[in-house]
Amino acid sequence: MTPTITAFERSPDGGRGLARDTRVRWALEEVGQAYEVRLVSFHAMKEPAHLALHPFGQIPTYEEGDLALFETGSIVFHLAQRHAGLLPDDAGARARAITWMFAALNTVEPAILDLVIARILEGDKPWSRERLPLVQDRIRERMKQLSARLGDADWLDGAFSAGDLMMVSVLLRLKTSGILGEYPNLSAYVARGEARPAFRRAFDAQLAVFTAASTG
Amino acid sequence: MTPTITAFERSPDGGRGLARDTRVRWALEEVGQAYEVRLVSFHAMKEPAHLALHPFGQIPTYEEGDLALFETGSIVFHLAQRHAGLLPDDAGARARAITWMFAALNTVEPAILDLVIARILEGDKPWSRERLPLVQDRIRERMKQLSARLGDADWLDGAFSAGDLMMVSVLLRLKTSGILGEYPNLSAYVARGEARPAFRRAFDAQLAVFTAASTG
Repeated sequence: MTPTITAFERSPDGGRGLARDTRVRWALEEVGQAYEVRLVSFHAMKEPAHLALHPFGQIPTYEEGDLALFETGSIVFHLAQRHAGLLPDDAGARARAITWMFAALNTVEPAILDLVIARILEGDKPWSRERLPLVQDRIRERMKQLSARLGDADWLDGAFSAGDLMMVSVLLRLKTSGILGEYPNLSAYVARGEARPAFRRAFDAQLAVFTAASTG
Repeated sequence: MTPTITAFERSPDGGRGLARDTRVRWALEEVGQAYEVRLVSFHAMKEPAHLALHPFGQIPTYEEGDLALFETGSIVFHLAQRHAGLLPDDAGARARAITWMFAALNTVEPAILDLVIARILEGDKPWSRERLPLVQDRIRERMKQLSARLGDADWLDGAFSAGDLMMVSVLLRLKTSGILGEYPNLSAYVARGEARPAFRRAFDAQLAVFTAASTG
């Protein structure tokens, strides 16, 4: 059965692949699962039909027969459990890969989302300029720790896993800030993720949606 | 084999059960798994021995023979997979319970952590008073959506699960803010979680550590 995901009809990131459907597309491409996409408008995301699928009115969602999921972490984990390629077989290595998924989403991403909030939601506030360095330094604290742990390894724990997929996806949000560039091994780590054929296919697919919306 | 977790030698929350070891203690109590606790000081958390266990220098960690995990979400998930009682057997219901774990940690908790940051890390900043309502309103947006989804149900999706354990734990951080009280069904939901015997045992255990540190 071909699953259906939802994505922005017109992504606010301008097709840069930062909307969260890219993470799910990437996982689907890594495991070789075909999928369909239903595009939703900002208006429709807050309507009852979509809220029944996603109580927080966001994208992506995932529908597969009777199963309906939301939350990128949960969807990627579901795919990783059902298909080979995103989680190691060994129980300990598998638990550690799952640990990195949670670390990406609960320890690293909140600091990075604060930068998005500071720039987009509070960019016009009187405190914006003075507060920004604090937000950036909280990100740097996490980046320093992550950089130290990664060292010169290719991936966070052995082979590429769903943990790397999620961490690279989270770090991608930092690319334009300049902060990622301060940590050469993390920059190289993100570039390794972006170079994966499955990521390229996912990126191109979301870009095609944005391009069609902009020229249509 | 009895697992060992780490916890604050002296929790900065004053024994209110908001440190993340309480979440892991709660899961251990729900599944009936005995455990040992190694207390760490703020200084020791940033030392190489602890960073080898937890790259971000936090608590809790989880050690069980050769397996070492960090991230509360990952540890609770590991326990839920290995023991009965925290995840349903049905594959779909299980995937939905895991969805709520991720929703608690990646969609609800970041907004709540921003309030902790605004109050504790930025409480003395010139923008503190003017910015606080924005932070609180972003929490209310999530609370409104969560409240609508929960409705008059006892738990988020059928029986109590690791998803509820994590969501209640995240919402507990809001209790003193007054915001939780604006949503009666969410207040009752949190109270149901706190009333569980396993939560009580976990809460009492963390409080005993704090009390001993304060009077010792």
